[in-house]
Amino acid sequence: MPKVGIILGGCGVNDGAEIHESVLTMLALDRAGAEMQLMAPNISQMHVINHFTGQEETSETRNVLVESARIARGEITDLAEVEADDMDALILPGGFGVAKNLCDYAMAGKDCVVNPDVFRLTQNIFNQKKPIGAICISPTMLTKILSESGVSVKLTIGSDPTVAGDITAMGGIHEECPVTEIIIDHEHKIISTPAYMEAKSIKEAAAGIEKLVAELLKMVENNL
Amino acid sequence: MPKVGIILGGCGVNDGAEIHESVLTMLALDRAGAEMQLMAPNISQMHVINHFTGQEETSETRNVLVESARIARGEITDLAEVEADDMDALILPGGFGVAKNLCDYAMAGKDCVVNPDVFRLTQNIFNQKKPIGAICISPTMLTKILSESGVSVKLTIGSDPTVAGDITAMGGIHEECPVTEIIIDHEHKIISTPAYMEAKSIKEAAAGIEKLVAELLKMVENNL
Repeated sequence: MPKVGIILGGCGVNDGAEIHESVLTMLALDRAGAEMQLMAPNISQMHVINHFTGQEETSETRNVLVESARIARGEITDLAEVEADDMDALILPGGFGVAKNLCDYAMAGKDCVVNPDVFRLTQNIFNQKKPIGAICISPTMLTKILSESGVSVKLTIGSDPTVAGDITAMGGIHEECPVTEIIIDHEHKIISTPAYMEAKSIKEAAAGIEKLVAELLKMVENNL
Repeated sequence: MPKVGIILGGCGVNDGAEIHESVLTMLALDRAGAEMQLMAPNISQMHVINHFTGQEETSETRNVLVESARIARGEITDLAEVEADDMDALILPGGFGVAKNLCDYAMAGKDCVVNPDVFRLTQNIFNQKKPIGAICISPTMLTKILSESGVSVKLTIGSDPTVAGDITAMGGIHEECPVTEIIIDHEHKIISTPAYMEAKSIKEAAAGIEKLVAELLKMVENNL
């Protein structure tokens, strides 16, 4: 049974992991018979957004690992305790948590800095030639991580020209992609799908994520 | 296009709506071409549970509508503003939020009291002969609501003898049901499935929820 790691960045599209993308990833993996290892860094969120009003709750602080545990139903590990040897592949769901908590892309753009444990695990997974799936906004962070080793991979965030431009500026190769499809970099074993960068409803996000998971598990099978 | 209301009780299995059950319900409805109306009461949660440690965060308070908005990606309405006329059917996902926020079954058992807006909307939907789907622990609350009108319906929470006993004591008819199946009360248009009352993984919960949604939409079609 292949084991796939999933890094969560909180719980909620505006300040954490995109909930639908995370759950859809878990569903597709479980249906394919894969085991899962949910992980999150034990750090404070950048901020807390009231998802009803859209306003920041300036008096509140929340922890990324603790909030991510809501999506994981408590079955989650501190990312600091996880090694690349523990899994056969890695998936990065999206949500603003990726760009605010796992790295600071939302503020710093192409000059973003990635959380050290996210950086370490992702780089090691890549160096072990294990496949990585990047959903929604997370291809920006993945480009940053890989570019620091001088590796340029092909991936997608859909069609947003600003974000696509940042990917190019960070050394990645952006390809436009419709929401229900995936972009595959066979050489580097990287698969990406736009999900809620483009999705107008949950079934659109699901279509791309299901293809991403299927392709990722095919790559795992070829690796094993 | 049929429109289905979904009442959420927060965001997280231990103090709110069960996230997977809520997202799986949305996915099944969207794939079937149904429109959705997400709703939650604008009230404080009973308490906040740290989902990583399982402990109560005694210094924190959260609002049910605001936290539910995380699952809904902001597209959610205060339950107080919604009428039965606004929808063709209703679904109640599970999670402890049902038994702690939408009613107080977790504390009061068969003597539980239901939130007035949850009570009003659910009773009106039932009186309008529109179908209701109840997932996980929510059949307890539904039994309570309907029993106050002297109506006894057939439903399931899986096989837990204590909860099943409470349903009987409140005037319902409990039937055991495997996690991937549903119990249908055709006369009263009530469908229920155990989901995480029994599920050992997300695909098990999904199987029952998909059947529940399909049967509910069939009943809606027969109504229209």
